[in-house]
Amino acid sequence: MAGVMSFAERVRAAAERNDSLLCVGLDPDLARFPAALRERGAGDPAGAIVAFNRAIVEATADLVCAYKPNLGFYLAYGLAGLEALVRTRELIPREIPTILDAKVNDIGHTAAAYATGYLDQFGFDAVTANPYLGTDGLEPFWRRADRGVLIICRTSNPGAGALQDVQVTRDGATAAPLNEIVARRIAEWAERWGAPGAVGAVVGATAPRELAAVRAILPDAPILVPGVGTQGGP
Amino acid sequence: MAGVMSFAERVRAAAERNDSLLCVGLDPDLARFPAALRERGAGDPAGAIVAFNRAIVEATADLVCAYKPNLGFYLAYGLAGLEALVRTRELIPREIPTILDAKVNDIGHTAAAYATGYLDQFGFDAVTANPYLGTDGLEPFWRRADRGVLIICRTSNPGAGALQDVQVTRDGATAAPLNEIVARRIAEWAERWGAPGAVGAVVGATAPRELAAVRAILPDAPILVPGVGTQGGP
Repeated sequence: MAGVMSFAERVRAAAERNDSLLCVGLDPDLARFPAALRERGAGDPAGAIVAFNRAIVEATADLVCAYKPNLGFYLAYGLAGLEALVRTRELIPREIPTILDAKVNDIGHTAAAYATGYLDQFGFDAVTANPYLGTDGLEPFWRRADRGVLIICRTSNPGAGALQDVQVTRDGATAAPLNEIVARRIAEWAERWGAPGAVGAVVGATAPRELAAVRAILPDAPILVPGVGTQGGP
Repeated sequence: MAGVMSFAERVRAAAERNDSLLCVGLDPDLARFPAALRERGAGDPAGAIVAFNRAIVEATADLVCAYKPNLGFYLAYGLAGLEALVRTRELIPREIPTILDAKVNDIGHTAAAYATGYLDQFGFDAVTANPYLGTDGLEPFWRRADRGVLIICRTSNPGAGALQDVQVTRDGATAAPLNEIVARRIAEWAERWGAPGAVGAVVGATAPRELAAVRAILPDAPILVPGVGTQGGP
C-alpha cells in the first residue's frame, strides 16, 4: 500500500497545513440554532442541520486538523438526522480527516458490520471506540491502511470514575487505575497489530492528571482531548 | 405513572404468555438470505431486509419473550439499512418487548440524545449499553417508567477477557474480576436510582462461570444471555 497515508499521518498533514491541533465537533441541536434555521428545521431537519454544518465548515476549514460529528446528535432526529450526517460527511473537504464519534463496541463479526457502515457507507476516516469488549471488536477499524480508531481511556463526565478509575492489580501486587491499563492495552495493540498510525486514544480535558499519564504510555499516538470549553476543561 | 408496566414486567408478561425465555436476534446479512430475497436486496436492500424480518417475526411471535435487532447489521447497509431498522420495529407486535442491541455509551447530554433517537424516534423498549462511561451516561435510559437498559458485564467474544477479567482490588485487599465489579455497580444503580424494573445485565453464554457470579449479584434483574448456538454457548 505504498503511497497510502496512515490516519495519524493524515491528521499530522492537516495540522501542519492549517497550523492547528483543533478538532471541531459538529453536534447539531436544532433548539440552539439561529431562529431562521430553527424554523426551517421544523419541516426539514436534515436541510437545517446540513446548512448549519456547512456554515461551520466553510468558516473553519483552514483552522482545524479534523472534524468530529457526534452520532448521538444526529440519531436524535431519526432517519432525517442520519441523512444529515451522511450529507455532512460529503461537504467536508477530503484533505481534512473526519472522526465519527460513535463510541463503537461490539464483538468481532458485528464490529466488522459497524466498520462497513461507518467507514465505507458513511465514509468517515476514523471512529471513536470503547475498549471494554477487547481486541477482536477493535481490529476491523485499524486493519485499513488509511483509517483509524481512537479508543476511550478516560472520559470527561461526572460519572467517569465509577469504572475508569477503579484500581487494577498488576503483577499480583502494585495497582493502577483502569484507564491506565486501557492505555497500556492500546500500546500493546498498536505494536502487536502493526497499526501505529491507526490507533489513538481519547482522554477528556477535565482529567489533566490522567491525560499526562496516558501521554507517557502513548508518546506517539494521536490523542483526542474533548471537553475544552463547554465541559469546563482547561 | 400507575398502570405503566416496567420493562422487566413487560418481558415477564411476554415470557409467561408465550411460555418462553427466548430472545430472538434480528441480524440481517443479505449475503446469507435465500436467493430470491438476495436478488431483491441488490436493488432494494431495505425492502429485502424488512421482508426477511417479517417472515421471522410471523413465524416466532408466539414463541419469544423479546426481539433484539443488532444495530451494526443495519448500519452496514447505510441509510437504507436504518430505514429497514425503523420499519422492522414497526412490524413487531407491541406486546412483545424490543431491545435495540446498540451498546450505547456516552456522556450525559449525548446519552440523552441517543435515548431520544433509540427510544422515541425509533421506538425501541430498551437498549444494550456499555458501562465504561458510568452513571450519567446510563441514566437517560432507566429514567423512563416503561423503558429499560441492559448493561454489558461479560461478553462472549475471544478478546472479552482483556479488560473484563482484569483483577480489581476491593477494600484495599481482596480482588475481583472487573465484570463482577460492573455487576455490583448495576445493583447499586438499580437500587439507588429506583429503577429495579428498568436495569438489567448482558452476560455471554460462552461464560457460564461469570454468568453464575453475575446472577448471584443480581438475583432479580433481567439478564440477556446472547451467544447460544452460533457462538458456541451451551
